[in-house]
Amino acid sequence: MPDINPQADARPPHIIGLKKPLGVVGGMGSLATAKFLQALAQKSGADTDQDHVPFITLSLPNISDQAHAISTGSNAPLGQILERAKWLETVGCGAIAIPCNTAHFWSSEIASALTIKFISIVEVTRDFIRQNNGTDIDNLRTIVLGMKPSIQRKLYGNLTAGWCVESIQRDAVGVIDEVKSGNIGRARFKMALLIARTRSFKPDAIILGCSELSLASRDIFKGSDVIDPVDILVDACISWFRET
Amino acid sequence: MPDINPQADARPPHIIGLKKPLGVVGGMGSLATAKFLQALAQKSGADTDQDHVPFITLSLPNISDQAHAISTGSNAPLGQILERAKWLETVGCGAIAIPCNTAHFWSSEIASALTIKFISIVEVTRDFIRQNNGTDIDNLRTIVLGMKPSIQRKLYGNLTAGWCVESIQRDAVGVIDEVKSGNIGRARFKMALLIARTRSFKPDAIILGCSELSLASRDIFKGSDVIDPVDILVDACISWFRET
Repeated sequence: MPDINPQADARPPHIIGLKKPLGVVGGMGSLATAKFLQALAQKSGADTDQDHVPFITLSLPNISDQAHAISTGSNAPLGQILERAKWLETVGCGAIAIPCNTAHFWSSEIASALTIKFISIVEVTRDFIRQNNGTDIDNLRTIVLGMKPSIQRKLYGNLTAGWCVESIQRDAVGVIDEVKSGNIGRARFKMALLIARTRSFKPDAIILGCSELSLASRDIFKGSDVIDPVDILVDACISWFRET
Repeated sequence: MPDINPQADARPPHIIGLKKPLGVVGGMGSLATAKFLQALAQKSGADTDQDHVPFITLSLPNISDQAHAISTGSNAPLGQILERAKWLETVGCGAIAIPCNTAHFWSSEIASALTIKFISIVEVTRDFIRQNNGTDIDNLRTIVLGMKPSIQRKLYGNLTAGWCVESIQRDAVGVIDEVKSGNIGRARFKMALLIARTRSFKPDAIILGCSELSLASRDIFKGSDVIDPVDILVDACISWFRET
């Protein structure tokens, strides 16, 4: 982290009765963070500026490459993610969200390091599927699209065994790369082809297991068999804020 | 502000050589903040997650209605904006940006309250126009679209005298309201009509004097006579980061 420096004498006045803001660990990647915040604003049901969900986003993107770390068995990103999440907790956030699937390989370590709620993208997505399908994700034929390590390590459960179609995952990485380079138009075009190809395997559900895929698919597959964990995370964050 | 609480013992480790992050005062409105962060990611020219501009966004949207305050001669929002900007300075940001035109009525007060750079949306837009037109904005026939108080108080200079066409400004407020309610599709449709009507007055330039108008016009008027201050602010923030 850079010289982020919370000093005791900088404590601003307390506004009684105001709910604590959501803490967002951003930068994995930066565009996916912006997309998350956009959905947070659009889905909050606020009519005025004042009624939106308050948040602090700490986006210091100099986090070690997660896919590489997972592939090589390194835990380097975890320490950096924890540092950011703990900082958000310390400055007064009431819950933490991370709009990045891959970061959730360490979700149990993150949750246990925090004293505030960690709204896990994997957990809320599994809950969503259970509620909407009447059964656990492990009982469904599900394809998770994402970076290769996400699939290998079975982020969303054991379901991907036998469903990890090599050529589809290559195409998914192609879409992710377009988004990370800012080529949204091209990413969306490729995403439509990817979803069509994935559907040909007739899965019960397709999970967008990387926030860049969520970005490339924005709204176009709404209400279909395509499950967008970022969208579900947004709903969970809004529910957390409205309920607390 | 809520109980945002930078404690001395929470100071995270210093990473030598890392540049200070950009501080963003958000929530005016929340969707405009997300659009700003999206453009920041897309225009930064980064190929990897790690190369993006680091930032901290403090989005506590319970700021008094600015348009109402300006209309009634109140300075209530200034104290709240300053509180947020100063907090971002205290925790270690290297510059402050506010993706909201109206907040810049108090830009001189904000700039003088900070010890770090305040990247003013009005100043960078005036600079942009001077560089691209070879003359000051005051010498051009310019229409600034925005909330009524923005126009009345001549945010971008004295240029709007005689150019404040009542019916156009009514339509602009209509677009702003659609964005604030999350109806982006409808806002874009109305925005296209608004720009066509504004062009019928044959101005040299049309300034989108409200970040909700920038959001509604995203990219569709690129490279034309329509000047988007949010887009210019993004460029200025990236330049600041790459240069410092």
